[in-house]
Amino acid sequence: MSKILRINMSDRTTTYEDVPDEYKFLGGRGLTSTIVHEEVDPTCHPLGPNNKLVFAPGIITGTNAPTSGRVSVGAKSPLTGGIKESNAGSAWPQLVAKLGIKAIVVEGYPTEDGWWGVRVTKDGAEFFDASEYAGKGLCEIFPGLFERFGSKVGIAAIGVAGEMRMGMAGVCFNDIENRPTRYSGRGGMGAVIGSKKLKFIVVDGDGAPGVEIADKDLFDQGRKKMLDALRTHDITKPKGTLNTYGTAALVNVLNEAGGYPTRNFRSGRFEGAATTSGEAIFETNQKRLGKELYNHGCHPGCTIQCSNTYHKPDGTEHVSCIEYESTWSLGANCGIDDLDAIAELIWLCNDIGIDTIEAGGTIAVAMDAGLADFGDSQAAIQWMEEIRQGTPLGHILGNGAATTGTAFGWHRVPGCKGQNMPAYEPRAVKGIGITYATSTMGADHTSGYTIAPEILAVGGDVDQFETDKADLSRAFQQTTAFIDSSGHCLFIAFAILDIPEGFEGLVEECNGVLGTDWTGDDVTRIGQEILDKELAFNRAAGFTKADDRMPEFMKYEKLPPHDVVWDVPDEALDAVFGS
Amino acid sequence: MSKILRINMSDRTTTYEDVPDEYKFLGGRGLTSTIVHEEVDPTCHPLGPNNKLVFAPGIITGTNAPTSGRVSVGAKSPLTGGIKESNAGSAWPQLVAKLGIKAIVVEGYPTEDGWWGVRVTKDGAEFFDASEYAGKGLCEIFPGLFERFGSKVGIAAIGVAGEMRMGMAGVCFNDIENRPTRYSGRGGMGAVIGSKKLKFIVVDGDGAPGVEIADKDLFDQGRKKMLDALRTHDITKPKGTLNTYGTAALVNVLNEAGGYPTRNFRSGRFEGAATTSGEAIFETNQKRLGKELYNHGCHPGCTIQCSNTYHKPDGTEHVSCIEYESTWSLGANCGIDDLDAIAELIWLCNDIGIDTIEAGGTIAVAMDAGLADFGDSQAAIQWMEEIRQGTPLGHILGNGAATTGTAFGWHRVPGCKGQNMPAYEPRAVKGIGITYATSTMGADHTSGYTIAPEILAVGGDVDQFETDKADLSRAFQQTTAFIDSSGHCLFIAFAILDIPEGFEGLVEECNGVLGTDWTGDDVTRIGQEILDKELAFNRAAGFTKADDRMPEFMKYEKLPPHDVVWDVPDEALDAVFGS
Repeated sequence: MSKILRINMSDRTTTYEDVPDEYKFLGGRGLTSTIVHEEVDPTCHPLGPNNKLVFAPGIITGTNAPTSGRVSVGAKSPLTGGIKESNAGSAWPQLVAKLGIKAIVVEGYPTEDGWWGVRVTKDGAEFFDASEYAGKGLCEIFPGLFERFGSKVGIAAIGVAGEMRMGMAGVCFNDIENRPTRYSGRGGMGAVIGSKKLKFIVVDGDGAPGVEIADKDLFDQGRKKMLDALRTHDITKPKGTLNTYGTAALVNVLNEAGGYPTRNFRSGRFEGAATTSGEAIFETNQKRLGKELYNHGCHPGCTIQCSNTYHKPDGTEHVSCIEYESTWSLGANCGIDDLDAIAELIWLCNDIGIDTIEAGGTIAVAMDAGLADFGDSQAAIQWMEEIRQGTPLGHILGNGAATTGTAFGWHRVPGCKGQNMPAYEPRAVKGIGITYATSTMGADHTSGYTIAPEILAVGGDVDQFETDKADLSRAFQQTTAFIDSSGHCLFIAFAILDIPEGFEGLVEECNGVLGTDWTGDDVTRIGQEILDKELAFNRAAGFTKADDRMPEFMKYEKLPPHDVVWDVPDEALDAVFGS
Repeated sequence: MSKILRINMSDRTTTYEDVPDEYKFLGGRGLTSTIVHEEVDPTCHPLGPNNKLVFAPGIITGTNAPTSGRVSVGAKSPLTGGIKESNAGSAWPQLVAKLGIKAIVVEGYPTEDGWWGVRVTKDGAEFFDASEYAGKGLCEIFPGLFERFGSKVGIAAIGVAGEMRMGMAGVCFNDIENRPTRYSGRGGMGAVIGSKKLKFIVVDGDGAPGVEIADKDLFDQGRKKMLDALRTHDITKPKGTLNTYGTAALVNVLNEAGGYPTRNFRSGRFEGAATTSGEAIFETNQKRLGKELYNHGCHPGCTIQCSNTYHKPDGTEHVSCIEYESTWSLGANCGIDDLDAIAELIWLCNDIGIDTIEAGGTIAVAMDAGLADFGDSQAAIQWMEEIRQGTPLGHILGNGAATTGTAFGWHRVPGCKGQNMPAYEPRAVKGIGITYATSTMGADHTSGYTIAPEILAVGGDVDQFETDKADLSRAFQQTTAFIDSSGHCLFIAFAILDIPEGFEGLVEECNGVLGTDWTGDDVTRIGQEILDKELAFNRAAGFTKADDRMPEFMKYEKLPPHDVVWDVPDEALDAVFGS
């Protein structure tokens, strides 16, 4: 039977609880948002004793369903002040699920100094002293951790930024080669767990019973439909777009559309796009390695395999992974057109334990405010070291773009609810802007990726400048909340939007595991139920419609090359989730 | 006829407008809050092009009514994100009023570098290049300004903190000896005017027509009643409490009551209270000067005269003025028990152009977060220099306690709506806590000074721990909004609460100037009308009941010596202004 594992940092105890009936059909984001909604006072201080951090594998995570090794990390966010779910792919949640653990709740607050880890096995959970690992880079300490605990364990960790309770600190998970590269990056989840002095959760799946599947035939039927869809769609198939060029395949596409935010959202087009694109990554690797290099999965069982490595001139590995969001945030958004510099900045983010999106957005705001010139990659690298060292400037930058704007009195901060925007210009692509503004998560493309129909002609084909997209954004946000609960990577969306059998497969996989009889309509219903809990939390935390708005400067500053402002009426934003 | 002067920083033009009929009976806070409410988009960025800063003398300011030289400064606050009125006493607003100017509105946004001043005379308003004064301390540049413009002008100015758009930057006004010491300190009004690159407004009253008085006899009758009340009450009379010991007379009183916040609100009692009290200031001056030194007014015509000077061991002047709030914020709240160090810190605040309350509160939060030990006055002085220099640490601290808490991931930040609390512990004195939580201004004692009946037995005598004080707080907030509009100093409240004729005098003075027929009931009505505009602005800016709350740690941390937590029910807070 599945359990909930509670880790109490006040008295350093761990307890296993039965899963309440009302949580039985929840997983991933549905479960983290429910537990946070039920157990965390929305008015609590995110870094005080009354916040809780919840990890939950998805419903089908730990099974052999393709591309399903996702974990949700939830808490009250120190970055947004609202509820947060931040999602990553790793073997870690697969091991958690196989151990029969539906969620891990980290709660309480230590009164003593020191850092702690928890090791979870089939026999239980025990603390270990982790103080020796504090203050060091994750790339430095990960090899020793796997030596100590075994190469097949999964590790959730925070870096020095999390130790220092910085708002851009993520929770890091090991990738398939046990690098510290897969992040629940957004919203400062690393700061929350850092405030509780928990440095690691090591999960050893040895002898794990595996995930219970209520209806194996149905599950297998769904799994096969999903697999076929993923293997068929141009974006997700082997040697398809994502497998070849990674997510950075989007660079040239968004740049062409004039929606690629450049130099802190001063333009929608970057003259250095081509040299920092997915194609450039592929070609550089090919040149430096003397062969074509296709991508790998971030967790076992992923068939999309979009995670890349980037190599130095001598062919040795520089970093994994250069995502679209990362090459943009630390590239175009900072006016940096040098892939080697971008790779170094991403490596630093991984090592320090911070979100690449917020990091790049913050550097861009600092440059915009006059602290360095756009394009000055050496300044950016130096600032990363300031974050690592915890200098005063590091504490400003480490707390994100909004805090950086406040510290330097700078009003051009392109964020919503305190979280900086990702790599899609809302003035040029209105639907994603509606998602940024109305998402329970702050500015977040993964909350409702309307880019699919607006730019990629996936799941429809709508004009990027059309403003009447409240329904579109809502539909995407609902479906996304469900996918984030399923344990599938959001990238299945490309295949299931275009291939109806893929969508059927998603529902059947979940029904197979849970023994439910959900239909396609339940996807929308369940998604909305999750959003309703998140919306209720945020309202109780003090959010109003005034928080569902774009930053003011986007309303009066025209964005080149299309010379567009943010012109979606407030009423359209309010129509997404009603009043 | 009265005019409104608009200073447009986009094109550096000044214009005079007739006062609209609906503004005719407004002054001070009533007028600033009305103009901000009418003209400023509540969702605008406080430091962006669409905020406006409004100066308004009170209704009777510029007349010979006693203690009436007050100015209101209003804008959207970069510290709270809501509407702000910050009030100071100086000859400056008296000169503005005598020139027939009812309000000065600073608007627009410069596109060029450089700093500007505006000189206002009876003949009009003209710009002058103020770049030569930028980057320098106010104590350094004030003498030269008065040499240039004449010793009888009034000067409104910002210091380097305002130039750097810091959230604790105030607007400074000259005192009666033309020192830069009287501040509209709270809420970052100096940052707003700094964002517009306006450094000074110099007002020359030469040949000014003076304030029109509709009914001179009625005004004189009211003025006499007010004067009698002020000269009779023990707190406000010559050689009374305030004239002898200054506002710091409160130190021992609040300390005795266990309501004197110490070491970032970790205790309600400070072992160094006696050596940093008003009595200690008086005695130290007596010892160092060889004579009793009574206080002086902050503007011509003040009969209370509570503003002190503090002298060095050799008898030379160190600083003016050591207020109660300042000796507390930079003393007890930082664990500093040395008046000479406190004097130096206040002098630095005056020179740099920052609010002493927010400055001390910020230093205390930084100490609490572990950046220095409590009591380390050298660290505090060094931090002031960091603010002056605009170092990264200076940018953190200069933006106040909430930003400092965010930067260092520290949850013990004793503020409401982003503004740090003044020198009354809300856990030990519940009514003032209700005011802090519900005030439109963020944590602010001057919004509704229930300390009078709770601690001083003025205007009633209620138990400090009693929680049922929503009505009390509302009544004080209403009356205060009226007094802040009248142009009287809030300290008239002591006399008019206890002496009915003083209250009559207040109303008659206003009726005399305006030709109105207000009664005592209108004071409440007019006060509530002002609050209603402020509340509407804040709601539109996104404030909800969740913002009308105490910081969470006060709900679970017991405050010595009374071991009390914040236990006023949320319902009582919501009852202050309804839903």
